[in-house]
Amino acid sequence: MECTHRVAIPPPQPFVKSLKCSLKETFFPDDPLRQFKNQPPSRKLVLGLHYFFPILQWAPRYTFEFLKSDLVSGITVASLAIPQGISYAKLANLPPILGLYSSFVPPLAYAMMGSSRDLAVGTVAVPSLLLASMLGNEVNANENPKLYLHLAFTATFFAGVFQASLGLLRLGFIVDFLSHATIVGFMAGAATVVCLQQLKEILGLDQFTHATDLVSVLRSVFSQTHEWRWESGVLGCCSLFFLISTRYFSKRKPNFFWISAIAPLTSVVLGSLLVYLIHAEKHGVQVVGELKKGLNPVSLGDLEFFSPYLKATIKTGIITGVIGFAEGIAVGRSFAMFKNYHIDGNKEMIAFGMMNIAGSCTSCYLTTGPFSRAAVNYSAGCKTALSNIVMAIAVMFTLLFLTPLFHYTPLVVLAAIIISAMLCLIDYEAAIHLWQVDKFDFVVCISAYIGVVFGSVEIGLVIAMAISLLRVLLFIARPRTMVLGNLPNSTIFRNAEQYPNASNVPGVLILQIDAPIYFVNASYLRERIARWIDEEEDRIKSSGETCLQYVIMVMSAVGNIDTSGISMLEEIKKAIDRRGLKLVLANPGGEVMKKLHKSKFVENMGQECIYLTVGEAVAGCKYMLQTCKSNPVIVAETRNLT
Amino acid sequence: MECTHRVAIPPPQPFVKSLKCSLKETFFPDDPLRQFKNQPPSRKLVLGLHYFFPILQWAPRYTFEFLKSDLVSGITVASLAIPQGISYAKLANLPPILGLYSSFVPPLAYAMMGSSRDLAVGTVAVPSLLLASMLGNEVNANENPKLYLHLAFTATFFAGVFQASLGLLRLGFIVDFLSHATIVGFMAGAATVVCLQQLKEILGLDQFTHATDLVSVLRSVFSQTHEWRWESGVLGCCSLFFLISTRYFSKRKPNFFWISAIAPLTSVVLGSLLVYLIHAEKHGVQVVGELKKGLNPVSLGDLEFFSPYLKATIKTGIITGVIGFAEGIAVGRSFAMFKNYHIDGNKEMIAFGMMNIAGSCTSCYLTTGPFSRAAVNYSAGCKTALSNIVMAIAVMFTLLFLTPLFHYTPLVVLAAIIISAMLCLIDYEAAIHLWQVDKFDFVVCISAYIGVVFGSVEIGLVIAMAISLLRVLLFIARPRTMVLGNLPNSTIFRNAEQYPNASNVPGVLILQIDAPIYFVNASYLRERIARWIDEEEDRIKSSGETCLQYVIMVMSAVGNIDTSGISMLEEIKKAIDRRGLKLVLANPGGEVMKKLHKSKFVENMGQECIYLTVGEAVAGCKYMLQTCKSNPVIVAETRNLT
Repeated sequence: MECTHRVAIPPPQPFVKSLKCSLKETFFPDDPLRQFKNQPPSRKLVLGLHYFFPILQWAPRYTFEFLKSDLVSGITVASLAIPQGISYAKLANLPPILGLYSSFVPPLAYAMMGSSRDLAVGTVAVPSLLLASMLGNEVNANENPKLYLHLAFTATFFAGVFQASLGLLRLGFIVDFLSHATIVGFMAGAATVVCLQQLKEILGLDQFTHATDLVSVLRSVFSQTHEWRWESGVLGCCSLFFLISTRYFSKRKPNFFWISAIAPLTSVVLGSLLVYLIHAEKHGVQVVGELKKGLNPVSLGDLEFFSPYLKATIKTGIITGVIGFAEGIAVGRSFAMFKNYHIDGNKEMIAFGMMNIAGSCTSCYLTTGPFSRAAVNYSAGCKTALSNIVMAIAVMFTLLFLTPLFHYTPLVVLAAIIISAMLCLIDYEAAIHLWQVDKFDFVVCISAYIGVVFGSVEIGLVIAMAISLLRVLLFIARPRTMVLGNLPNSTIFRNAEQYPNASNVPGVLILQIDAPIYFVNASYLRERIARWIDEEEDRIKSSGETCLQYVIMVMSAVGNIDTSGISMLEEIKKAIDRRGLKLVLANPGGEVMKKLHKSKFVENMGQECIYLTVGEAVAGCKYMLQTCKSNPVIVAETRNLT
Repeated sequence: MECTHRVAIPPPQPFVKSLKCSLKETFFPDDPLRQFKNQPPSRKLVLGLHYFFPILQWAPRYTFEFLKSDLVSGITVASLAIPQGISYAKLANLPPILGLYSSFVPPLAYAMMGSSRDLAVGTVAVPSLLLASMLGNEVNANENPKLYLHLAFTATFFAGVFQASLGLLRLGFIVDFLSHATIVGFMAGAATVVCLQQLKEILGLDQFTHATDLVSVLRSVFSQTHEWRWESGVLGCCSLFFLISTRYFSKRKPNFFWISAIAPLTSVVLGSLLVYLIHAEKHGVQVVGELKKGLNPVSLGDLEFFSPYLKATIKTGIITGVIGFAEGIAVGRSFAMFKNYHIDGNKEMIAFGMMNIAGSCTSCYLTTGPFSRAAVNYSAGCKTALSNIVMAIAVMFTLLFLTPLFHYTPLVVLAAIIISAMLCLIDYEAAIHLWQVDKFDFVVCISAYIGVVFGSVEIGLVIAMAISLLRVLLFIARPRTMVLGNLPNSTIFRNAEQYPNASNVPGVLILQIDAPIYFVNASYLRERIARWIDEEEDRIKSSGETCLQYVIMVMSAVGNIDTSGISMLEEIKKAIDRRGLKLVLANPGGEVMKKLHKSKFVENMGQECIYLTVGEAVAGCKYMLQTCKSNPVIVAETRNLT
């Protein structure tokens, strides 16, 4: 019996080279330095500048056509950004004007350094709420507004530093640890929590709990039913109805996307007018109050690096930074996919980081690329990041000249704007899809939701991530093993459960292992394989087939093996030998083969027992079985020897 | 073109059934209830009793032959157990008599419930040291010996409860998370630390640091050079030389195993005699002092459940419990393998737990199955767990009548016994083997060692486990992708790097992914696959081959996929379509196929693009390529359409 092919042992590689290779795969999978190869130094400098400042790349090729599109989209986004900015700043317990400041400097910074053409930079709801709840645990925003403000700048600074350094260290992949299911559940939970917080404004309450969980909020709301103000409630519901119906309309007629884009500004204008005309501020409708005219004041001196709250500030910065970035990169990537261009996560991370560092020095708090603005920007036909500059200029005009107009803006209208934006984030269809496709992902999603709504934003996030990682570990710790059978009229061997017409080969048990063999699963595999053999022998005994002689282990899906795994294989081999059977390996990969060779397992086993394909392994076993049948003494002797 | 086989979509299974099935695989991989199936209730009861009390199984078949062997081995082990027990109790800062107590009750409990025939139960060095260092942080053993003693009993109780409940909950697999490499490094580190602690006795010092790290110990030793006692040192070195040389001799002549087994007792007897005769206790040689005669007093009332140290006690119990059990089960399994019988980890865990609970109520501290005793037991030819009972009876006699003989036993001889036992645990050959076979495992091993020696036992353990788990996660987060080529004269496709003679198929790129597609690697794979295609197109451009038309993704090693992975596949498909190429899948497994089907990916892609083998996929692509070549207009049109 002869095989055409032998399993190759890859040639030994010098340790340093293989280390370098695997470090490169881990940290530079996208090979960002590829374009720098074989270039003269001057060209390298230019490419480097292009890398960090994509504006240098697209600005020279900018056309008048682009400008027209970017002007329209920038102004449309600004009309959304202004009311949203004020609302989210209220959510973060910060002065409303900060929302406008944050829509001025960061978009300019992003336009220089960002590589997405569709992102429109601004503040977002979930990090705003997180900032309020995490810093609120340390400092009361109402009692000590100045310190609270300074801590918010400092947290933003740390968020920026964290984002930029992750990007520089090529660690952007940590956002990949937030799975799709985690994000769906987390976002829905956060949206629910944010909406619950708006009950304060909608019902016109003065006192409200600082906690964010459902139970505390409902207790706070229902403990003061006598304080509810119907005027506020009516105005809130009307605005909400207006906002939702315009969104619905725009969804139906995509050409009228601008209707839903300007709806928030319209409701602010109408609400302010109404309050001004009927003096509703004296009848329980709270208003924004005075907004200072003028551009962002410098806040570099306000950063508190030596306060007793430093630890809490850093923690807030890191968590809000990660969540902000995760939203930004997800949005950026989705739109990049629509338009077929590439976004480098690490480079974006640096851009976001620099933008937040710049923001923290100019009275801005955490910004990222929110979905709502990017969607409006995209629908309005933006072409480049210039739309961010246009938006920033529009906000600048507002800051310089129009702030007094917001004096009478009712808070409840801002609350309605937040609620209507949040409702889009509760993606129940995605949750249903998760349930249909992958129950485990559904569990992750629901735990994130429940954790956020009944615990806190951090608890939800930690639970969901822990469950997601547990699943990955479980895949390795409890790999599937399956029996393969022969598909009729072929030399193909496949899982007998998936292909019921696959028939087993008499005298041979073919087992496939579906994961790398590591210490976490070595003991499990040892027991599971022993059980497969037991079960097969029981089955054979009751059916009276040829008794079992060979166990073929199919290693196609075993990507790697560690020393615990090799010991396990040695033990399995001994156990199989002791039963009078013979172990045969089929198709071990390069990495596995290298290690089996180094540990002398290949030598002990005999390379003739390692086959390239399952078909050849089975053919080899069959050949041996026939030889034995025609000469049964050999079998008996072989059995005694082992 | 026709394919003989189609990729089957496994029939949908009811959710409850598949959940039950995967829970069973996770917690009952060894199917312990198998023997209970189809049995009458009375038989089930008997089997259940046999399960929890294996003594009922072997006692009825016990023979006189067995008794002879067990008597010899039990007495030999006792001669090792008595000096070892006293030494380790000193190591744990507990009264020496506790070491004897702990060799009396627990072995009796284990003989009833344990399923190993070779384990000889007793105290061990590493958990003893851990107990001293962890409880020592809370209570000073010299200043408050009574409280310290009670806390030690309580910690033992919690260790027992923890072990038993893990066993009952079928969670014994958590010890699998201690990889072989971690254990090698950890044990060597712990042995180094234990030996360092013995410098106190060897040099005859009164004062000594409570810390266990190398730096603190050396500082403590060299800060009091004037206190060193040469008498103690000489006696210690002589004993150590005697012990090591007997071990060496026994290793050379396996028939004289008993020489190394009784060497500790011999050195204790000789040392005590010497001290008694020359009154060395008055010349700087510290002695054990008085040992109380009599059996274990009941200590149930001494358990401190309401002390302020409860948290520390529970933590100590859990950590010492896990480490003790890990050693015991590893030793038990190794000897079971030699003798070809099976040990159920969860059942053993229950036995260890009950043994420690019983011990904590009878003045014993943490016990397990130490390697040294099991090795002596095995070499002495033990047949059943009765050797434990024999040993316990021998210890009982010692407790009742012989304790006064240990009054003059020099502590330095006990220190020598500990050192000589510890030296075996520094397995440098295993570390060299790790370096040769698997560099990553070597890093794990060395970090465990350095962590233990320079930090503390817990730090070393945590670092090593974190690195080991990181490796598992990294395997999933950065799966290998490789290009397959055709082996000459076959339809076999294998990794082109492993098989340099594999040739690529013109116009077709065959990519294999080596891990399940989960959220942690979805982004990576998207970028990596895009890069493979870029590189292939660059290569083709420079070589002028047929331009790329098909990308075949080989899914053989993709064991599972989650919803993030499915989105990634959809994105890849879109990206490939947009380049004017076509995506083809080869050999997706049952689980993957099920999810791709549920998420409508199969439908979108067209089932005709999913092939059962790489060979068929390539044949399909080639067929299409030929059709296109003979009719190039179609290609152009297809390209424009996509």
